[in-house]
Amino acid sequence: MILTVTLNTALDITYRVGSLRPHASHRVSEVTERPGGKGVNVARVLAALGHEVTVTGFTGGATGRVVQEKLAEVPRVADALVPVSGATRRTTAVVDERTGDTTQLNEPGPTVTPAEWSAFQEAYADLLHGVSAVALCGSLPPGVPVGAYAGLVRTARAAGVPVLLDTSGEPLRRGVAARPDIIKPNADELAELTGSHEPLRATQDARRRGAGAVVASLGPEGLLAATREGRWRAVPPAPVRGNPTGAGDSAVAGLLSGLVEHLPWPDRLARATALSTATVSAPAAGEFDRGRYEELLEKVAVTAEVTAA
Amino acid sequence: MILTVTLNTALDITYRVGSLRPHASHRVSEVTERPGGKGVNVARVLAALGHEVTVTGFTGGATGRVVQEKLAEVPRVADALVPVSGATRRTTAVVDERTGDTTQLNEPGPTVTPAEWSAFQEAYADLLHGVSAVALCGSLPPGVPVGAYAGLVRTARAAGVPVLLDTSGEPLRRGVAARPDIIKPNADELAELTGSHEPLRATQDARRRGAGAVVASLGPEGLLAATREGRWRAVPPAPVRGNPTGAGDSAVAGLLSGLVEHLPWPDRLARATALSTATVSAPAAGEFDRGRYEELLEKVAVTAEVTAA
Repeated sequence: MILTVTLNTALDITYRVGSLRPHASHRVSEVTERPGGKGVNVARVLAALGHEVTVTGFTGGATGRVVQEKLAEVPRVADALVPVSGATRRTTAVVDERTGDTTQLNEPGPTVTPAEWSAFQEAYADLLHGVSAVALCGSLPPGVPVGAYAGLVRTARAAGVPVLLDTSGEPLRRGVAARPDIIKPNADELAELTGSHEPLRATQDARRRGAGAVVASLGPEGLLAATREGRWRAVPPAPVRGNPTGAGDSAVAGLLSGLVEHLPWPDRLARATALSTATVSAPAAGEFDRGRYEELLEKVAVTAEVTAA
Repeated sequence: MILTVTLNTALDITYRVGSLRPHASHRVSEVTERPGGKGVNVARVLAALGHEVTVTGFTGGATGRVVQEKLAEVPRVADALVPVSGATRRTTAVVDERTGDTTQLNEPGPTVTPAEWSAFQEAYADLLHGVSAVALCGSLPPGVPVGAYAGLVRTARAAGVPVLLDTSGEPLRRGVAARPDIIKPNADELAELTGSHEPLRATQDARRRGAGAVVASLGPEGLLAATREGRWRAVPPAPVRGNPTGAGDSAVAGLLSGLVEHLPWPDRLARATALSTATVSAPAAGEFDRGRYEELLEKVAVTAEVTAA
């Protein structure tokens, strides 16, 4: 059993409109909804790979009920969300059918009270018993302290559970200092954490700040990993066109499944890169194309980095 | 008790964003929600005027549950919505805080099955017993036949209940032929119904097509009424700036309350114009400003139209 934490869960809504024009009225031709937030996306990919996953975080209001109803339909995913009095946020992606462009409208999420945050920390400590790994993913909703992830990393380490952290800004900075096993920043997040725009140097620097392994996702250039066992670059066979939504979450699922299956690092990185690339090229945002994934898995080039940082 | 029918009920969501830019990601700073659809808006204004109101139409899915929860909080409004398997639509108004402009995204609404439409017609016939008037308001959801309002008008007339119809296009054209007591088209709807862009001529023409009384809402120029008792024009004392959302629904509530209170036509028109104007000038879309309404009520000029059509 793998545990994923999504403190700012969401109902992801996609609207298709003919052409989005500010100040006009639009008839939405197609509405799709699915449970979202980065840890929920990671859980869905892990479940598709055959892993049992428990999802925790917060749920509240009518939107929270919809998220839970839809989670209940996903095989191998167990719902351990903690109730809050505020309402789970909606994120709306408005897809312009003419240009293919997406305009995003994100609600801020519920304000979590100190009592609700305490209840979550207790539930989280209980859930850690018997899980093989935990992923802490995404932004913090209003009311949750900025050091939240640092505390959750320490609790996981005390319980002997490997922990992956995927967030940004100050919550990432503080979380790294608590020594998570893996972090997976993108290029911007890594630069913000380390002050360096040179990925090789920055991944090494992030390790010195406390991360056991740093896997930087560099978009079309694949992944760059700095670990205790060595440094590697994993690159997809060819550039892909498509929607990058969820590509980072698929990479996290690849890393986490590889970790619990005790794969060597190069195999974990190949899997993460193939999943991420198969997510970009899938027709539906955030889904991955299984056939494409299996095909890519053979073709991702993983090379050891020998240059000194 | 007054009955209002909203076949395409909605959850009206308002998002405030700093500045809406297509293809960008936006953080919503404020989210408000209220039950909507034209007949629901009419009911809210009637209730604020002190009338007991029953609301019917369709409700379905998670959004329908939210609409019903919020309706339960409105004093003097009773919920008699009929369940459907599809989901009640959301309409989202995105307000640009920089320009004040509103961009509207409207879901289509649930597809109503023939069995659900039959169930509604039975419920409607039952609800007509003991009501003093009925308003049929707004667009038809997918699956409801285009002649729907014509049938509902006939059922009301057979039950001896005065009926007001506020819709557009073919549903209005067919509904008028069934001889409703009052219709309240705006200038565009009236022109589409009659083929004439000359309001005096068009209101007379709409009466010949079957409407007992025609009250055309002409925006800042107020109302123009053609009735069995005579023709009047009702004009607000000065042009108002603001948001016209819901102004037509407030006018319908004014006409309907005046009808059940047996007010003479000039008083009904003064009330409808004052309510409509106080809705445009209210800070929240679709609400009316009570102080402003009472002040305007004394100042609306109602004059008899003596020109031959």
